[in-house]
Amino acid sequence: MSTTVDVPESSNVAKGKAVAVARAGGWKKGLAIMDFILRLGGIASSLAAAATMGTSDQTLPFFTQFFQFEASYDSFTTFQFFVITMSLVAGYLVLSLPFSVVAIIRPHAAGPRLFLIILDTVFLTLATASGASAAAIVYLAHNGNQDSNWLAICNQFGDFCAQTSGAVVASFVAVLILVLLVIMSALLLKRHYHS
Amino acid sequence: MSTTVDVPESSNVAKGKAVAVARAGGWKKGLAIMDFILRLGGIASSLAAAATMGTSDQTLPFFTQFFQFEASYDSFTTFQFFVITMSLVAGYLVLSLPFSVVAIIRPHAAGPRLFLIILDTVFLTLATASGASAAAIVYLAHNGNQDSNWLAICNQFGDFCAQTSGAVVASFVAVLILVLLVIMSALLLKRHYHS
Repeated sequence: MSTTVDVPESSNVAKGKAVAVARAGGWKKGLAIMDFILRLGGIASSLAAAATMGTSDQTLPFFTQFFQFEASYDSFTTFQFFVITMSLVAGYLVLSLPFSVVAIIRPHAAGPRLFLIILDTVFLTLATASGASAAAIVYLAHNGNQDSNWLAICNQFGDFCAQTSGAVVASFVAVLILVLLVIMSALLLKRHYHS
Repeated sequence: MSTTVDVPESSNVAKGKAVAVARAGGWKKGLAIMDFILRLGGIASSLAAAATMGTSDQTLPFFTQFFQFEASYDSFTTFQFFVITMSLVAGYLVLSLPFSVVAIIRPHAAGPRLFLIILDTVFLTLATASGASAAAIVYLAHNGNQDSNWLAICNQFGDFCAQTSGAVVASFVAVLILVLLVIMSALLLKRHYHS
């Protein structure tokens, strides 16, 4: 379908301006849709991180008279914090989807966008804190520390270490996605001067 | 000094609009100046964190034939990372001051503001990661971990522990300031609809 519009010569400037606005709108729509897709990816990676960490549990096949050797995420406060935080991040990202949809439909409404960027920043901090602290523990488990006489436990608890390392990697993916979400929201908040 | 301007009755709407713009501009100017002050606070706290951690070093007054008992930030990779990262954050915040000044002078220019919010987000992630991982190690040093047989070292290295804990607290202050900076930049990026 094509429509013909009679445009008087004098309104060429206005026409050019309208085209620029439409172009800026399309660019914004693309970013807003990418925002939604990135949120889905963030949900997947943070859920994967929480689930992988939450199911990490290894019991060694030998035991002494007094106790069994067992390592699970429960052993480390940091890993418990990790599971709770990554679940919170996943939950927040699910709840943020409707706002992302609203921002796609109404790309010029600043309200939902502002709401998203502020909460994204808060949850970015939360996700980074839990990912980094878990990474510090995983590093210790792999390498130990001589000066404090903490021995590496990954020789014994190989599966446990592999699983927690995987969870840390997944959380870093979630952090990367949240950083991208904040930056994209900032770009979207900046209203075009010729629009 | 007072100036009198003759305003025809018909331009009352325009006058009201101008007042609204001026009011919005004042609100923005206040936030922009607070941004600058918060940056100064961020520099202080991140420098304090880096310096406190970097000078943490405790040698126990007894030693065996083979080695002395010494704990310094060098002992832990995480603490080395902490010192480097917090110095980087302090350096970035110093370099960001001119941009903050430009944003005060020209509150409607979106360029510097966008530049600041993107880099603030990146350095927020960096600061959070180093603060949280150092906190995880400090927590271990205080409490130890039974399952992995890592003993608390703070009984022996009390001063070292106190100093590293202080550095972690200072880094959390820097993180809080960076979160506030990102949120304030988001508020400033959102251009007022009636301006």
